[in-house]
Amino acid sequence: MGRSNRLRVITIGEVMLRLSVPHHQRFIQADQFQVHYAGGEANVAVALAQMGQEATHITCFPKNDLGLAARNELVRWGVRTDQVYFDQGRMGVYFLENGAMQRASSIIYDRSDSAFALWDGRQLDWDRILEGVDYFHWTGITPAISQRAADILKLGLQEANRKGVQVTADINYRKNLFDYGKTPKEVLSSLIPYVQVLVGGLSGIENATSIQANTFEEVCLKVKEQYPNIEAIADTTRTIVSSSINRLAGTLWDGEEFYYTKEYELTHIVDRIGGGDAFMAGLIYGLSHYEPQKAIEFATVAGVLKHSIPGDALLCKVEEIEEVWTGNQVGKLKR
Amino acid sequence: MGRSNRLRVITIGEVMLRLSVPHHQRFIQADQFQVHYAGGEANVAVALAQMGQEATHITCFPKNDLGLAARNELVRWGVRTDQVYFDQGRMGVYFLENGAMQRASSIIYDRSDSAFALWDGRQLDWDRILEGVDYFHWTGITPAISQRAADILKLGLQEANRKGVQVTADINYRKNLFDYGKTPKEVLSSLIPYVQVLVGGLSGIENATSIQANTFEEVCLKVKEQYPNIEAIADTTRTIVSSSINRLAGTLWDGEEFYYTKEYELTHIVDRIGGGDAFMAGLIYGLSHYEPQKAIEFATVAGVLKHSIPGDALLCKVEEIEEVWTGNQVGKLKR
Amino acid sequence: MGRSNRLRVITIGEVMLRLSVPHHQRFIQADQFQVHYAGGEANVAVALAQMGQEATHITCFPKNDLGLAARNELVRWGVRTDQVYFDQGRMGVYFLENGAMQRASSIIYDRSDSAFALWDGRQLDWDRILEGVDYFHWTGITPAISQRAADILKLGLQEANRKGVQVTADINYRKNLFDYGKTPKEVLSSLIPYVQVLVGGLSGIENATSIQANTFEEVCLKVKEQYPNIEAIADTTRTIVSSSINRLAGTLWDGEEFYYTKEYELTHIVDRIGGGDAFMAGLIYGLSHYEPQKAIEFATVAGVLKHSIPGDALLCKVEEIEEVWTGNQVGKLKR
Amino acid sequence: MGRSNRLRVITIGEVMLRLSVPHHQRFIQADQFQVHYAGGEANVAVALAQMGQEATHITCFPKNDLGLAARNELVRWGVRTDQVYFDQGRMGVYFLENGAMQRASSIIYDRSDSAFALWDGRQLDWDRILEGVDYFHWTGITPAISQRAADILKLGLQEANRKGVQVTADINYRKNLFDYGKTPKEVLSSLIPYVQVLVGGLSGIENATSIQANTFEEVCLKVKEQYPNIEAIADTTRTIVSSSINRLAGTLWDGEEFYYTKEYELTHIVDRIGGGDAFMAGLIYGLSHYEPQKAIEFATVAGVLKHSIPGDALLCKVEEIEEVWTGNQVGKLKR
Amino acid sequence: MGRSNRLRVITIGEVMLRLSVPHHQRFIQADQFQVHYAGGEANVAVALAQMGQEATHITCFPKNDLGLAARNELVRWGVRTDQVYFDQGRMGVYFLENGAMQRASSIIYDRSDSAFALWDGRQLDWDRILEGVDYFHWTGITPAISQRAADILKLGLQEANRKGVQVTADINYRKNLFDYGKTPKEVLSSLIPYVQVLVGGLSGIENATSIQANTFEEVCLKVKEQYPNIEAIADTTRTIVSSSINRLAGTLWDGEEFYYTKEYELTHIVDRIGGGDAFMAGLIYGLSHYEPQKAIEFATVAGVLKHSIPGDALLCKVEEIEEVWTGNQVGKLKR
Amino acid sequence: MGRSNRLRVITIGEVMLRLSVPHHQRFIQADQFQVHYAGGEANVAVALAQMGQEATHITCFPKNDLGLAARNELVRWGVRTDQVYFDQGRMGVYFLENGAMQRASSIIYDRSDSAFALWDGRQLDWDRILEGVDYFHWTGITPAISQRAADILKLGLQEANRKGVQVTADINYRKNLFDYGKTPKEVLSSLIPYVQVLVGGLSGIENATSIQANTFEEVCLKVKEQYPNIEAIADTTRTIVSSSINRLAGTLWDGEEFYYTKEYELTHIVDRIGGGDAFMAGLIYGLSHYEPQKAIEFATVAGVLKHSIPGDALLCKVEEIEEVWTGNQVGKLKR
Repeated sequence: MGRSNRLRVITIGEVMLRLSVPHHQRFIQADQFQVHYAGGEANVAVALAQMGQEATHITCFPKNDLGLAARNELVRWGVRTDQVYFDQGRMGVYFLENGAMQRASSIIYDRSDSAFALWDGRQLDWDRILEGVDYFHWTGITPAISQRAADILKLGLQEANRKGVQVTADINYRKNLFDYGKTPKEVLSSLIPYVQVLVGGLSGIENATSIQANTFEEVCLKVKEQYPNIEAIADTTRTIVSSSINRLAGTLWDGEEFYYTKEYELTHIVDRIGGGDAFMAGLIYGLSHYEPQKAIEFATVAGVLKHSIPGDALLCKVEEIEEVWTGNQVGKLKR
Repeated sequence: MGRSNRLRVITIGEVMLRLSVPHHQRFIQADQFQVHYAGGEANVAVALAQMGQEATHITCFPKNDLGLAARNELVRWGVRTDQVYFDQGRMGVYFLENGAMQRASSIIYDRSDSAFALWDGRQLDWDRILEGVDYFHWTGITPAISQRAADILKLGLQEANRKGVQVTADINYRKNLFDYGKTPKEVLSSLIPYVQVLVGGLSGIENATSIQANTFEEVCLKVKEQYPNIEAIADTTRTIVSSSINRLAGTLWDGEEFYYTKEYELTHIVDRIGGGDAFMAGLIYGLSHYEPQKAIEFATVAGVLKHSIPGDALLCKVEEIEEVWTGNQVGKLKR
Repeated sequence: MGRSNRLRVITIGEVMLRLSVPHHQRFIQADQFQVHYAGGEANVAVALAQMGQEATHITCFPKNDLGLAARNELVRWGVRTDQVYFDQGRMGVYFLENGAMQRASSIIYDRSDSAFALWDGRQLDWDRILEGVDYFHWTGITPAISQRAADILKLGLQEANRKGVQVTADINYRKNLFDYGKTPKEVLSSLIPYVQVLVGGLSGIENATSIQANTFEEVCLKVKEQYPNIEAIADTTRTIVSSSINRLAGTLWDGEEFYYTKEYELTHIVDRIGGGDAFMAGLIYGLSHYEPQKAIEFATVAGVLKHSIPGDALLCKVEEIEEVWTGNQVGKLKR
Repeated sequence: MGRSNRLRVITIGEVMLRLSVPHHQRFIQADQFQVHYAGGEANVAVALAQMGQEATHITCFPKNDLGLAARNELVRWGVRTDQVYFDQGRMGVYFLENGAMQRASSIIYDRSDSAFALWDGRQLDWDRILEGVDYFHWTGITPAISQRAADILKLGLQEANRKGVQVTADINYRKNLFDYGKTPKEVLSSLIPYVQVLVGGLSGIENATSIQANTFEEVCLKVKEQYPNIEAIADTTRTIVSSSINRLAGTLWDGEEFYYTKEYELTHIVDRIGGGDAFMAGLIYGLSHYEPQKAIEFATVAGVLKHSIPGDALLCKVEEIEEVWTGNQVGKLKR
Repeated sequence: MGRSNRLRVITIGEVMLRLSVPHHQRFIQADQFQVHYAGGEANVAVALAQMGQEATHITCFPKNDLGLAARNELVRWGVRTDQVYFDQGRMGVYFLENGAMQRASSIIYDRSDSAFALWDGRQLDWDRILEGVDYFHWTGITPAISQRAADILKLGLQEANRKGVQVTADINYRKNLFDYGKTPKEVLSSLIPYVQVLVGGLSGIENATSIQANTFEEVCLKVKEQYPNIEAIADTTRTIVSSSINRLAGTLWDGEEFYYTKEYELTHIVDRIGGGDAFMAGLIYGLSHYEPQKAIEFATVAGVLKHSIPGDALLCKVEEIEEVWTGNQVGKLKR
Repeated sequence: MGRSNRLRVITIGEVMLRLSVPHHQRFIQADQFQVHYAGGEANVAVALAQMGQEATHITCFPKNDLGLAARNELVRWGVRTDQVYFDQGRMGVYFLENGAMQRASSIIYDRSDSAFALWDGRQLDWDRILEGVDYFHWTGITPAISQRAADILKLGLQEANRKGVQVTADINYRKNLFDYGKTPKEVLSSLIPYVQVLVGGLSGIENATSIQANTFEEVCLKVKEQYPNIEAIADTTRTIVSSSINRLAGTLWDGEEFYYTKEYELTHIVDRIGGGDAFMAGLIYGLSHYEPQKAIEFATVAGVLKHSIPGDALLCKVEEIEEVWTGNQVGKLKR
């Protein structure tokens, strides 16, 4: 699917200030927050950059030192930021309480009126941005943020299709975000026609497209029927035993066959946020470098490993992911 | 059993400065201690306050900034402190080394001559304090601390019985604490006649009352025979696999039937101190709001959730406990 | 095997500055390192000192405040340091990234040209040092560091044999360390003739001696044949499920019988570095105080408990190890 | 001026989440923020509560755990919160970078659409709230936040005047906050007629009232002429040498005489935020308990001491302030 | 005065657990305490050990892990602990709030019934302990702790005089400690006859001996008259500008002449506790190695440098003290 | 002097891992180190990048995660790293103990055999690297590290001169570093002929060139005589009162006139490392954007502000420096 050794990937979306409570404390106990800057799409860019690929993230930050810090954080992880702009609006924030044992994790979003939500993307020259690009990645969060964000995204998708750039989308259905007068289905179903690789589960796809199905296999065929542009669909199945113990497995349909990974035991979870984004990054890398079976294994292990790393983003090299997938170095001490 | 939507609960007991070693270090490695203020009875008050009930704690602190800090901590968690007094004596302290894996946790008590132990309770107007109160809660720790503490408690229990206030007691047998010339059995067996709801296991009850039995069911019937004032008995069964893994189940006898919960797996324990106090708070809430089966499930989940929270006290709302008990949100990410 | 109530043990080897990343962060995320001073042989000395034995460590540090801090750390844990010297060269360093879940732990060594590697041991009066000593312990790391270190060690071993001091050796095979022109086999096979108690597995022994075998039982007999000086061989079997979950079992051959422990589940691992050194210390203590079966149980539990303690060294008293081995206090709360 | 031993004081205003960068780092270096909850008026309430007075704060928080945490923080410091409400809207936030040496401190406000700004105060029963109250305190920040906030405040001021409650106001001129279509002057000049004790400097008063003057003495007389309701005016003069070194002096006009304090050297400043609020609290206490000269000394020392305490609020007892003012314990070690 | 290159010094006294609030927070803000183990006499031993001298501290700790940790801390800093015993009683504790600016520092003592206070010293073989010793150092704190402590000390002092060991005493007058039925004067005046080198100021000496004087010079002569055993008297003059700024100067009378140091400016004080103990250690070292003028300069600089180091003890080498005293390296960057 | 709005600057030199002890602790107290990556020349690049200029740093790191982290740190601060290489060798380290008060700061270097020291620079295409560049900056540290480093530098300098790139040099005399068989003078005096802007003081210049002078004015003229290539010389005068208090002034000779700044008081120093590098960055910026008098003021304030920021590098925008220099915002609170 990919064409070169070093993929060129464009991602677009809001990057927020994440404030998390350390040491499994509750919000009401917190006297400090840990600081990260993260977003579902930027997490994909960061992960791909650690895998040695060229990732460029498109976003807009407020014109203050928090915006600067967020930009620097992307830069630090090797993401290209020549399409990062600074404009009016505030920094979107999310507060994270990490659960433990039977106690759920909890997020308080505070992202209204962020610089990204208010941004009209006038500085973007899509023609130039997408020139020579292999993948353009978006998630269902971006068009949920504001009409403007949905409009910017659509322009990009159209240009990507024109240029033959592969479009990947993670449905990431967030009903509550949509508050600008359109329904999620209305918005998402108008964007899926631009997509080649779709990540989503039964309920997400139903919410976005009205397609109903009982199994992943069934939904794949129905999606293909309705959206012939779709070339592959992938998803993870997560079984939640507790905040500390999950199980994760991946599935991939490449338009012809179905591929399934083993189920990975996730115990002693360090930070579960961003697992889906790591999977997405692993999928983009995997589809471009491996056969489908290996691709979905790689993507799923990428998702698994994310749970071991503080922050939203997967900070692993390709060989570190391969070591786990092949079982060579799982939990060993590397001297 | 309860009478109103918002229960009024009185608790009495010492609140200590808890100094715990962070990051699973041993005492001999510690170069900092984490600071909490806690006590078995105050923990019940704090937990009930988080559940939206009106809890008032009776205690006495030293007249210094540590006493002030301890009082403020109770206040912070919504406990009423109009029956908190400041007097001569020191702040009781306990040092906690959190175990891990097969290594046991360890506590060093340093509570002799505390302000509470020296206190004669002369400021307490029991008639006024217990007016309109639903529950009066005590544990076997308080009468173990000093003759004065036992005397204060007895006065309160007599008044509670006079007024028809439900008395709950957690036997919490601490043989080593009793050092003022009376045996634990002598003291405890003289206080149990005032109790309606008793929490304790076979050995605790035997130590307090000389009643011997082989099963929870048997002990309940024998206690009832000897103490007809007892209306309900509850207990938890804890299976200790390691410091990090326990199993917990609850049982309740409501004077007629026996009720049993499922066994909860506690892995990745964050802080096991106060699990019994959380169970007690959950039991008081549960008995007042639910049928017996639901009550003991609620109480047990309260005990379970405590293990996920740093410090001695359960800081959870009623709905957070219900989510786990009904299995709706166990370990999920709540956005 | 042992002769007195308080063993006298000599260990020799490099002590490094260990810099580890806290909170399961990756190296590339670290903005602070935790500081420990440790080394495979010194860890044995520290552990034995906690068990109440007299342990003296022989090493050489750089003449600066890091060397001083390292010496003080040994002193703090009760190790005698009258054979600690300060000389030219740098402080050896190792950087540790603690893994989690499926993600492996990782060490970056930076120990070239350390004061210990450059040291010629001219200050050592082996005759005096080994007078009245019960055990002289070394590992395969020391002769790998430099020709000088190998020469110093050999002198000590010869004197130990002359004096009838029991020599214990942990093969601890580190192929990459040897870089001074001799092969590991060449060096190690010339030192094993001085050993009475050997710790090592099939591959380690093969690498050191060319002896090939398929089972621990087989290798023991073959080693004895080739090295009649060997009186006992022990090893642990570690099954690595993940960085957070291991399983550990011990085996001992005392020259006549084979002894096996149960397999211990290690979940919620705090710090796995130094597990082998704790086993070694437990073995020395165990062989001197118990029957063989108890000795290997004690040693294995020592190894188990190390995983629950931050830093390289086992900081446990004898009774704490016995509690776990006998199952009396596994994970209980000791008040 | 005051009437009782224990003053009853009402304050009203927004309480924000304060996120400050520790250890003199810059925003762009921060990987953690320290958490406080604070606001100009609530700081006065907290300080007065530490001085043993009864302070009630009126505000509105978002219905989430951050709102809860903020409420609990007020409670912890002894402020009465029966007039704290929870409603729609977000938590106002401010980010603080503590300067050092010649480098200025810097604040990023992020308080738009906070629960307080959106609140219409419909739950407030001013008649009941102000019954028996000695002081009602407000600052120029509150009417700047929103039209609703200005309206709520005005209702309170009218009732306060009706009841003869002393009204104190700190002009605290914040031009940039006003963004709802009215000028600061328009708003503030309509509220000053309700005030008895005014705190403000030349430029603040000019901005609020158009009164121009060259000296504090002159402005006092002119204000009195235009606003005969004013009974006292106070201010501090701050000389800023650097972020670490300031000088502070206080002045008071009690309607008849002018009173001046000595100039205090503030070196080694720990946290300068809230110095004016501490002064205000000290002034309310001082005017009620001392002669004017002592009152202004007490208020100024309260402002001074705030600079030595992390967080926005002065956490000092009356005797601690008196010790400094009388020079008895400045910087001594109290055993 | 001294006789050898490496002095042998004996100190005796209680070592407490010091719990201090970090980051200039107040006690009522603290959620962690920093852990040190310290005591006025042990601080002298630690400081002398850093200066390369042989220091042995005599004390008694409780038989628990806190006692062990305290012993290990002494060991870590090179103090000999063969006269450290473990017995019944608790660990003495002191809580420290570090002041800042005009805000005073504050200590809460909690040392009653400590193992040291209850100890009868029966294990001490004074004849052996003082053999070959150069200095025996005590302070006025020890005889204030308990009758037993005073008795132990007296036995030691008698033996020291018998053996010609130089006795140094720091009056360190603590009126509030004495609570066993004797007055401070009664106790102290009976111990001063054993002293050769006395450290104390006018009020301390008056409180201990009834000797009244207006100047240091006058008091020296009067003391000599009354206690002809005294060979030297020294003191520091501390001017307290604020918690962050002090000034310190030293004076020495060697029985013949008076010697004065310059006044040192102490700004940016890190930790002022133990300044006097550092001075004492410097004085012992100085009197043994330098002429009187140099000795008092050295001692005073030792006191000065202590203020720059966290914890109670001066951790400096002789050359580091000399660098400051000679002005060569004051505040320079040493590469 | 400069030509464009956005300067293009090339710097070359080693970047080390800096490990500093927090909270004014001593090395021997440290149980954690703070992590920074820094070097004299890279610090200039980082500072210029914060000022909005394009800075490219040339260096070589070891092929491990520490090298990666160091590279990422440069990237994070906006430095271009397309001339950063990864090769054999270790990470250079320096350990920093921050002094306080009269106690000096202290550095332990551990940089032998670093990847940079071993690097032969074969990957550098100087012609391409220096194309269109405004400034090429080096310090006397680089040629001191190894013969290879000196050779690499010389090639760069020759090409810079060929291309008319302005060469800036900070003598930064480090006698102890030179250990490859050549004298500092031999090496440095052969490199100064390539320089246009020289930073150094009397002793540094004498050590590098044998030019002796008594004043800055005199040395400037003599240097010009001997090295007519020199167009400007600058220096700072630092008066060290203590580790916490310094005074700093700057001087500049532009080939014609001498310019002097006022003397800045540096009290409450946060981190003094890198002050000279910040001055150098400010000088490059200043000479390109201002008249000489303003240029030296700007450079000196840049040096001043560095002392307020943790880490080696000045992280300030141009306007933040200008605010201090013009006195507008010194120590104010910017809302």
